[in-house]
Amino acid sequence: MTHDKILRPLDTSVTQGIPGDKQSWIDHYVSVRNYSLLICEKLAVEDFAVQPTAEVSPPKWHLGHTSWFFEELILRKNQPNYCRFDDSFPQLFNSYYKSAGKHWLQAERGHLSRPTVAQISEYRSHVDQAMIRLIDRYNFDEATLALLDIGLQHEQQHQELLLMDIKFILGANPLRPVYTDSPLPLSPLVTTKWCSFDEGIYDIGAEDDGFQFDNETPRHKTYIHAFAISDALVTNGEFLEFINDGGYQQAKLWLSMGWDWLHENHKKHPLYWYQKDKQWFEFTLHGPQPLDMNAPVAHISYYEANAYAMWRGCRLPTEQEFELYLRQVDRSNAENNTVCHPHNANMSAGQLWCWTQSHYSPYPGYQPYQGMLEEYNGKFMCNQFVLRGGCVATPPGHYRPTYRNFYQPHQQWMFSGIRLAKDEK
Amino acid sequence: MTHDKILRPLDTSVTQGIPGDKQSWIDHYVSVRNYSLLICEKLAVEDFAVQPTAEVSPPKWHLGHTSWFFEELILRKNQPNYCRFDDSFPQLFNSYYKSAGKHWLQAERGHLSRPTVAQISEYRSHVDQAMIRLIDRYNFDEATLALLDIGLQHEQQHQELLLMDIKFILGANPLRPVYTDSPLPLSPLVTTKWCSFDEGIYDIGAEDDGFQFDNETPRHKTYIHAFAISDALVTNGEFLEFINDGGYQQAKLWLSMGWDWLHENHKKHPLYWYQKDKQWFEFTLHGPQPLDMNAPVAHISYYEANAYAMWRGCRLPTEQEFELYLRQVDRSNAENNTVCHPHNANMSAGQLWCWTQSHYSPYPGYQPYQGMLEEYNGKFMCNQFVLRGGCVATPPGHYRPTYRNFYQPHQQWMFSGIRLAKDEK
Amino acid sequence: MTHDKILRPLDTSVTQGIPGDKQSWIDHYVSVRNYSLLICEKLAVEDFAVQPTAEVSPPKWHLGHTSWFFEELILRKNQPNYCRFDDSFPQLFNSYYKSAGKHWLQAERGHLSRPTVAQISEYRSHVDQAMIRLIDRYNFDEATLALLDIGLQHEQQHQELLLMDIKFILGANPLRPVYTDSPLPLSPLVTTKWCSFDEGIYDIGAEDDGFQFDNETPRHKTYIHAFAISDALVTNGEFLEFINDGGYQQAKLWLSMGWDWLHENHKKHPLYWYQKDKQWFEFTLHGPQPLDMNAPVAHISYYEANAYAMWRGCRLPTEQEFELYLRQVDRSNAENNTVCHPHNANMSAGQLWCWTQSHYSPYPGYQPYQGMLEEYNGKFMCNQFVLRGGCVATPPGHYRPTYRNFYQPHQQWMFSGIRLAKDEK
Amino acid sequence: MTHDKILRPLDTSVTQGIPGDKQSWIDHYVSVRNYSLLICEKLAVEDFAVQPTAEVSPPKWHLGHTSWFFEELILRKNQPNYCRFDDSFPQLFNSYYKSAGKHWLQAERGHLSRPTVAQISEYRSHVDQAMIRLIDRYNFDEATLALLDIGLQHEQQHQELLLMDIKFILGANPLRPVYTDSPLPLSPLVTTKWCSFDEGIYDIGAEDDGFQFDNETPRHKTYIHAFAISDALVTNGEFLEFINDGGYQQAKLWLSMGWDWLHENHKKHPLYWYQKDKQWFEFTLHGPQPLDMNAPVAHISYYEANAYAMWRGCRLPTEQEFELYLRQVDRSNAENNTVCHPHNANMSAGQLWCWTQSHYSPYPGYQPYQGMLEEYNGKFMCNQFVLRGGCVATPPGHYRPTYRNFYQPHQQWMFSGIRLAKDEK
Repeated sequence: MTHDKILRPLDTSVTQGIPGDKQSWIDHYVSVRNYSLLICEKLAVEDFAVQPTAEVSPPKWHLGHTSWFFEELILRKNQPNYCRFDDSFPQLFNSYYKSAGKHWLQAERGHLSRPTVAQISEYRSHVDQAMIRLIDRYNFDEATLALLDIGLQHEQQHQELLLMDIKFILGANPLRPVYTDSPLPLSPLVTTKWCSFDEGIYDIGAEDDGFQFDNETPRHKTYIHAFAISDALVTNGEFLEFINDGGYQQAKLWLSMGWDWLHENHKKHPLYWYQKDKQWFEFTLHGPQPLDMNAPVAHISYYEANAYAMWRGCRLPTEQEFELYLRQVDRSNAENNTVCHPHNANMSAGQLWCWTQSHYSPYPGYQPYQGMLEEYNGKFMCNQFVLRGGCVATPPGHYRPTYRNFYQPHQQWMFSGIRLAKDEK
Repeated sequence: MTHDKILRPLDTSVTQGIPGDKQSWIDHYVSVRNYSLLICEKLAVEDFAVQPTAEVSPPKWHLGHTSWFFEELILRKNQPNYCRFDDSFPQLFNSYYKSAGKHWLQAERGHLSRPTVAQISEYRSHVDQAMIRLIDRYNFDEATLALLDIGLQHEQQHQELLLMDIKFILGANPLRPVYTDSPLPLSPLVTTKWCSFDEGIYDIGAEDDGFQFDNETPRHKTYIHAFAISDALVTNGEFLEFINDGGYQQAKLWLSMGWDWLHENHKKHPLYWYQKDKQWFEFTLHGPQPLDMNAPVAHISYYEANAYAMWRGCRLPTEQEFELYLRQVDRSNAENNTVCHPHNANMSAGQLWCWTQSHYSPYPGYQPYQGMLEEYNGKFMCNQFVLRGGCVATPPGHYRPTYRNFYQPHQQWMFSGIRLAKDEK
Repeated sequence: MTHDKILRPLDTSVTQGIPGDKQSWIDHYVSVRNYSLLICEKLAVEDFAVQPTAEVSPPKWHLGHTSWFFEELILRKNQPNYCRFDDSFPQLFNSYYKSAGKHWLQAERGHLSRPTVAQISEYRSHVDQAMIRLIDRYNFDEATLALLDIGLQHEQQHQELLLMDIKFILGANPLRPVYTDSPLPLSPLVTTKWCSFDEGIYDIGAEDDGFQFDNETPRHKTYIHAFAISDALVTNGEFLEFINDGGYQQAKLWLSMGWDWLHENHKKHPLYWYQKDKQWFEFTLHGPQPLDMNAPVAHISYYEANAYAMWRGCRLPTEQEFELYLRQVDRSNAENNTVCHPHNANMSAGQLWCWTQSHYSPYPGYQPYQGMLEEYNGKFMCNQFVLRGGCVATPPGHYRPTYRNFYQPHQQWMFSGIRLAKDEK
Repeated sequence: MTHDKILRPLDTSVTQGIPGDKQSWIDHYVSVRNYSLLICEKLAVEDFAVQPTAEVSPPKWHLGHTSWFFEELILRKNQPNYCRFDDSFPQLFNSYYKSAGKHWLQAERGHLSRPTVAQISEYRSHVDQAMIRLIDRYNFDEATLALLDIGLQHEQQHQELLLMDIKFILGANPLRPVYTDSPLPLSPLVTTKWCSFDEGIYDIGAEDDGFQFDNETPRHKTYIHAFAISDALVTNGEFLEFINDGGYQQAKLWLSMGWDWLHENHKKHPLYWYQKDKQWFEFTLHGPQPLDMNAPVAHISYYEANAYAMWRGCRLPTEQEFELYLRQVDRSNAENNTVCHPHNANMSAGQLWCWTQSHYSPYPGYQPYQGMLEEYNGKFMCNQFVLRGGCVATPPGHYRPTYRNFYQPHQQWMFSGIRLAKDEK
């Protein structure tokens, strides 16, 4: 069936003739908003609606939620006579902002067939037209511009989530449907060397130029001990050695909670790996593939990453160590977003979010956003670990070396990987 | 959006010119199969895919499962060179027949966005064309004809399930979408009198004419003690009195398991009832409605039915008592299937399946079907209760006075109601 | 350690000199009450306190609960100035009588170390002295005498439960402690023949002489079809054949709920069976024993009993059929209560409670007790199955052919067994 | 009943005449081992056996486990012909050391009535006699002496756990039994001032003198930003203000996981608080007490501690900040161990373990113990938070300023409290 009937990308012709700065904000807005639809273009209507596990959201929910974000934070605050598209939508599309009122349970987003994809597409159009009109007519103050920026960064975060969630939805299906027909390149051979860093005081965190989330600030002095970090991600081939060496059976390699997780969930390999006729395969957004031994190992939990590092006699880097590494080598993440699977273990960023050994905690002097956005980051600083480096699903331009991604240690459905570190004498 | 693209009803013109008996079987086949699609005609694609609770199946699953039934039981056994539409479908559309191989977990049917509704519609067409060709070309023996009959009765059972599941899917949605715009008539005033039956030996169970399920046989002698049964279903108004009298707070009215169920699930009224501004409403397939006090109370668990009967100083009838009543008064269920909600408490059948106090057990001398269908009924004879009488969602012609429906005592999503009984003399 | 310090049996010398009928009531009271302590005599203090699974109660709880029963039903109603031993005990020792006020959760009885065994023993003495004084001084009316009788029958029911629970507590312990050193006799060879019964109307239920529970009444006419019932219990040897034939792997033998139970709980054999060096053993109250192939198979669920009957091409009897059988052959259960394990498959009663295919439901015309005891039996008539025949743990004199025991189909910890039946012509 | 029959403290007279260093090790061994029994002296036998919640162990388990530790780590490795007291004990008393073989599930320790307290007391004697003989006869090398030291520190950790677990066992009982009759002093009035610390590089972690656990090392340079820390613990009175201000109802004060925990567990106040006739009480080891407004608030989760700090506009200290504070002010914890409840908010240590905002993670360069003890600390460095400062249940001499205690953020049953911190401009 044809889906252009369902998802209606923004018509940018309406925005012609808007002067200077406003025009570039509008262009940026349109481009980011359309990219969400582009990601979903290949889906069947049914793909938008299901939720095979609590942490995965139906794609249509993401499309609604990101629109609600603009409606709630900008339109209702700045456009005096703004009328909500539908007064029952906030309870459905508020994710977890308690100060914004009641919200539907995350684990039950897949219970709702309505609003339909078509209705949510209309909702997006409604919000987009109002946003563009508002940007055009009003002169945003600093604070509102910052909110606009956050709204677009927020949409980009959900673009990555969309790809993760779509992958899980398709991958949980025994029919193993293909997301994209574009070719998946074979990974090149990997060369590994260690990058060393001296002991000393370093500045960690975002500088005050360009966009950053509150959790990346303030930039602050940190004492870092001498260490080395690998310039290659751990590959499928290396991880398979760990498996073949009985890595999943050796309790001493595992954190206590990891060992329990392993047994309760019968884990024996990374998510999306499976065997057929004794051959290993991996489900990808490009469909099922024979396991590429040179490709970075992906979709592993913190428990698996940590156990692998133990087995190798190494450790995971701290997030501060990782940031030093990224600031030095970072060449931003892959431009070519037609490849939806990691395929180059020697890229320093943009392939996989790498687990660090750092729990997600506030930086010294951390101040959360004010207002509703106080709940954006700070309230999750408990029992999660920081991941660094961006991934193939991160939208172009969204990633920074100071970016702090975070997940719970058992989670596997994000594009996660391993970069090893070790102490230097 | 237009749905005729998605669901393709059978083109009956292809069947013209087939001789006599075959033609009537084909007509019957086409008519029953098309009725399933008719039920789904008003759904959005998304409505077909979700599963808000484990016992409810996504409508598209029903459409696939009923087709698999014909494919597995008839086509593959009788058409030598029959090719399955898709070899991965049996594991998805087998419900619970262990002898037919592995099957997808019932509670996870809503995890699957694929096959899409359109693909399942193609699957139906594939099966239907093959079935019609088969009926036309071969001369079915008795046993195969019986299977064909069972397959169509099975499809009708799922037609009722479709309406129950659609109601739950829409009713679980805070937007409360309307299934049908056709008018819901107000219920007439109810008159109540008791129908008495003498003590004695009665024959219970289906006679050997026309269709019956294995669980309705053999017809057997039963000793029944004098009793009376109400000729009216309990109404919303009467049930509200029970609520207002604190019925849900009086432990002595409840079965022990019912009292626990009540508290664990915070039950305070029938499913689909809700209050707004101190007014009672009921969600129906005709949309939300002010509670009609003369309409039969619907969507109650066995626990609630039994507690209500206790409160009234009566009891629920046994299934044998109910059968005697139905055989005497039954005028088949309502013709007018445009009304999807009970609205006449004085109808003897066809409004609501009424709970009996009889656990679902085998009749003396019971013999289950042979082969795969051995699993059809017998293996569920444990911890369920029999319901009698048919309901507004039962397809025309499907219901019989000896029909034994059965559900678990906590279940509420079927069209269930209460008809009281009492001991005589 | 010596336990006579902890449990204080009633000193019967105080009751001498009481006239006639009263004396025999007092003797009976003393004898029943002391028997509970006798059962517990061999326990360590710690054995009284633990609860390895929700359905098993700590033995000290039984000792307290049975005393509370007399306190609440008789002492507080009949002795005007009666002072409770401790006002906080009712909430702890009320089992499930909602009309008697709040009660501690059954699954959390093992959370409570206090009151200690010694304190509960004092509580028993307090109640016993008051009871004996009351019986002596007052002239009980019919109703109070009936309550006294129920209280003693109730205590006897808990004596059986005590043995079941003690067995589970010891059997769940990897040290496998021995309950009794008395010898366990080898089972004699089994001879099997079928006892046939003609079709016809029979009276079922208790006659109005002697004690009976409300659920055994009223005696009522029932139409029973010709059947035969085995005069031998199924043995361990026979059940082992079922296992060795893959009985636990053949879905078609199992009820649907049974199949799920099997897999969720990894069941592969009766409770208390285990293998060591490829030899089968059975844990008994006489300690671990090599599996006695002629002994009746014990501690099986309804699911297992039903699957076994299916495998043998037979069925389980209905409770009415079983009652006919028992009335004809019953010679009361074993006198010799020093043997705490079934050891004679040819005894017609008193070895194992046998599963019937009858769900536990009210008899026609059933009237529950009045008052608090309304909750004694009736509220459990849902999703349980009737067992008949008494077992080695049933106290002497407690059992009757019309006795209806009942358990949930997954339960195994009672002394349950299998007696097969089949339809006759 | 008298318990000296059950618990047999070590007779130290046997150790007289042992020369110098050995004698002091033996004296220390005897003193530490006897202290465990002293803690349990007031318990009823039943108190030793129950486990009201998974994280609490039956006291008798602690007595066995600490003995197993010596048996497994020292006796079996160093005494060639050592015979285990009972070969089935290791599986029961191994806590979680996977390299030491299978172990009983923690959550099911309370399922086991055997071995009895008396048998475990014998087990302790057996181990103690062997240990004393070994220390006397052999000359321990450094490594073995270190293990002996760890064994005794380990026993002391379990002494604190014993008091926590005993408190929970008694506190979960509606009879609210009293642990100790010794008087609980009223808390003095609290004076509060902030202690300031300058920004700079500090050494964190244990120096290489005296005992330390592996997780306290290595001592390492850390950059710390200017901060101030309160010299008083938060009091019950202050925490009550938080409650009365609706603290438990304000989502913005809570971590996301904390908010969910709050609602799933219906938390409205610290563990052990309760209301009677609108008065607040607190259950203590000295029995129920009216809430002492000047006493430090105790038994709170990390979630509650963090929410309180938010409400006060402060934050919790990091563990490094706390260590600086303790090193400056620490006067070791309370000598007077007859008081088993915090009662002086102005003491710098030894009242309550205070939550820090630091997740429990390895120090830079951390090396775990070798061998079985590799599992002692490192494998728990995930999703726990560090607490600092010792508590009234910490045995004399056990605590150090560099000590890192750790618990999961939802746990409340340890003696936990709040000390506030804030950034210094």
